[in-house]
Amino acid sequence: MNAATDRSIKAGTRERRRIRNGEINGATAGLAAGNVQANLVILPKALAHDFLRFAQANPKPCPVLAVSEPGDPSLPALGEDLDIRTDLPKYRVWRRGELIEEVGDICHVWRGDFVSFALGCSFSFEEALVEDGIELRHMTCGSNVPMYRTNIRCVPAGPFAGPLVVSMRPMSPQDAIRAIQITSRFPSVHGAPVHIGLPQAIGIGDLAHPDYGDAVPVREGELPVFWACGVTPQAVIAEVAPEFCITHAPGSMLITDLSNAKLAAL
Amino acid sequence: MNAATDRSIKAGTRERRRIRNGEINGATAGLAAGNVQANLVILPKALAHDFLRFAQANPKPCPVLAVSEPGDPSLPALGEDLDIRTDLPKYRVWRRGELIEEVGDICHVWRGDFVSFALGCSFSFEEALVEDGIELRHMTCGSNVPMYRTNIRCVPAGPFAGPLVVSMRPMSPQDAIRAIQITSRFPSVHGAPVHIGLPQAIGIGDLAHPDYGDAVPVREGELPVFWACGVTPQAVIAEVAPEFCITHAPGSMLITDLSNAKLAAL
Repeated sequence: MNAATDRSIKAGTRERRRIRNGEINGATAGLAAGNVQANLVILPKALAHDFLRFAQANPKPCPVLAVSEPGDPSLPALGEDLDIRTDLPKYRVWRRGELIEEVGDICHVWRGDFVSFALGCSFSFEEALVEDGIELRHMTCGSNVPMYRTNIRCVPAGPFAGPLVVSMRPMSPQDAIRAIQITSRFPSVHGAPVHIGLPQAIGIGDLAHPDYGDAVPVREGELPVFWACGVTPQAVIAEVAPEFCITHAPGSMLITDLSNAKLAAL
Repeated sequence: MNAATDRSIKAGTRERRRIRNGEINGATAGLAAGNVQANLVILPKALAHDFLRFAQANPKPCPVLAVSEPGDPSLPALGEDLDIRTDLPKYRVWRRGELIEEVGDICHVWRGDFVSFALGCSFSFEEALVEDGIELRHMTCGSNVPMYRTNIRCVPAGPFAGPLVVSMRPMSPQDAIRAIQITSRFPSVHGAPVHIGLPQAIGIGDLAHPDYGDAVPVREGELPVFWACGVTPQAVIAEVAPEFCITHAPGSMLITDLSNAKLAAL
């Protein structure tokens, strides 16, 4: 283990410990910079196999970083001391598709048949874009990235089916080309864009009215660039309405010990 | 040397020999499929260093595959038996920027101070796009790719200065993203596009009126994708009007022994 890895493991452990201790209860953006953060989906074992098949068939919106043993709250591939029941600042608990509570830990609802899925998140590729000097409009605006339901259907698996949700970042054509190159290196965190330039072609009527997040200005001479979004599985789960499900609350992610740089395929 | 390499060297040698013998005097597209074809620029030694500096500073329009010794008609890096004076079907001879003849060999004008430059050509990346199943509209139309002068200035070097010329291929947004990935692998043959989607932003007023080549239809739901073009150095040379210069005639390229696959950077 070299010094850099050692430092990033320390940062992941440190931030998870602070979260576990209730010192952080909001957004995780910017915490343990350089470490991979993940979307979380927890489902009963009876649904886990179909959900994993769904993720396998839809790797751009649902890139799987790790899957737990049933009932086991650890995810050793993502952090040695990680406890999925306590290590996110905020969780959403769903029963039959209805949000029943937003809580700081899930020990009180934990079951022996729960399977946890950690899915890649755009924070990783956004870090690589920012390092390259590309402006991300939602960061400039201090808002959430705008997200849209598209007319592109995910490949269904068992009960899991629904539309692809995309995030949008406006860029100059030159930055868009560079962003395609950069994000192509990160297939495990949504990878290359799924669309560029023509929102109507994927069923988006008005960029000013996103389905999730906040609208951002698209300036003259810019193209909207669309990436598959980790909200897709949440939107699909809302439609499927499983008897029980837990997800992270928006922006309140799982901080791992993996480094974003290590995810680069090339 | 494996069998595949052996075959492609044979194909290059064979086609150059047929050209040398006057059996082929038109376009080289499709000959020695899989082999790199190159743009040719021959300049007197007095201008060669500035031209090479120009190419170095503008690698997207002027990717240098090989440079000859002064007065030496061979280019051993591109083919063992290659003679630059006889091995292209058609040459253009320029004096002070004026086209003075189009000829099948240049033995009668060859000088001891001539330096040959072989520059990468879009045929190589087009082969990779077609292999991936991407439609190239100018091929579908059986016409030349449309090319446009832009308002992007090349980095000048000595007397060499002028606008970037681009080729345009219309594609669906999905194919455009894939084409950016594929051509990024080929930096020595123009590489990734220089622009996508907004022709006005680079000074192109009307796609239906290219400056070189033929117009092609851009269908609804498609974006125009622009690559730096090997016509750039020819356009620059026409402006610089050197005392003497020889280039290939359009479409009548130098067939080399290199394989397109070997040019892939990744």
